[in-house]
Amino acid sequence: MSKSIRAILKKNKKFTVNGSIWIECNGERFFGPGPVQLLDLISDTGSINKAAKQMKMSYKKAWEIISSLNAEARQPFVVTQAGGNSGGGSVITDEAIAVIVWYKELRERFTALLEKETGKLNS
Amino acid sequence: MSKSIRAILKKNKKFTVNGSIWIECNGERFFGPGPVQLLDLISDTGSINKAAKQMKMSYKKAWEIISSLNAEARQPFVVTQAGGNSGGGSVITDEAIAVIVWYKELRERFTALLEKETGKLNS
Repeated sequence: MSKSIRAILKKNKKFTVNGSIWIECNGERFFGPGPVQLLDLISDTGSINKAAKQMKMSYKKAWEIISSLNAEARQPFVVTQAGGNSGGGSVITDEAIAVIVWYKELRERFTALLEKETGKLNS
Repeated sequence: MSKSIRAILKKNKKFTVNGSIWIECNGERFFGPGPVQLLDLISDTGSINKAAKQMKMSYKKAWEIISSLNAEARQPFVVTQAGGNSGGGSVITDEAIAVIVWYKELRERFTALLEKETGKLNS
């Protein structure tokens, strides 16, 4: 079947199978590439505000994402320390790191499927 | 790892792995669930206009999707017959049907991965 599919599509163009994968909680999108990027940037910068800016996202939107993550986890994913000499800052927790690592491994397994399907499409 | 991930997430909520899969042409999204639904509805109704309405989409938007599909295929996916007693009408071609069938099989293989990953997450 895939051989005939490629014959339907234009010869001189590159066709690839791509996709997105995420976790839902009670049927609502909960964790995926957006939260992973936001958490990675909070980890890098120590700041929700800086992370939001790098994603061209409002602080309000970033906080909504974090709040929703914190609501579905037994322990929060992001902890904000108020005050101090450094003016506080935000850190991601070990639980957040574990879920990020798990998600990236899931994404790798999905990427393997995408590459296999792209190969079949073009074979 | 997945056992500890489930232990991080709240006990009384249902977590599932979900996702979307599509075909890109030269890096641009080309074929996926939206075009499949539109083509299926054109096939059911014989009308781009009726199909667009059922998808709560403008005729212009529907036509843009069809035009982009026709541009990447060696033969068009949708053919419109002008005039006649029935006032014309649109049909999807054998090539469109073959790509729809192939896409639905691809989605089934992806669904198998999603179900396997959901099982692992909850195990």
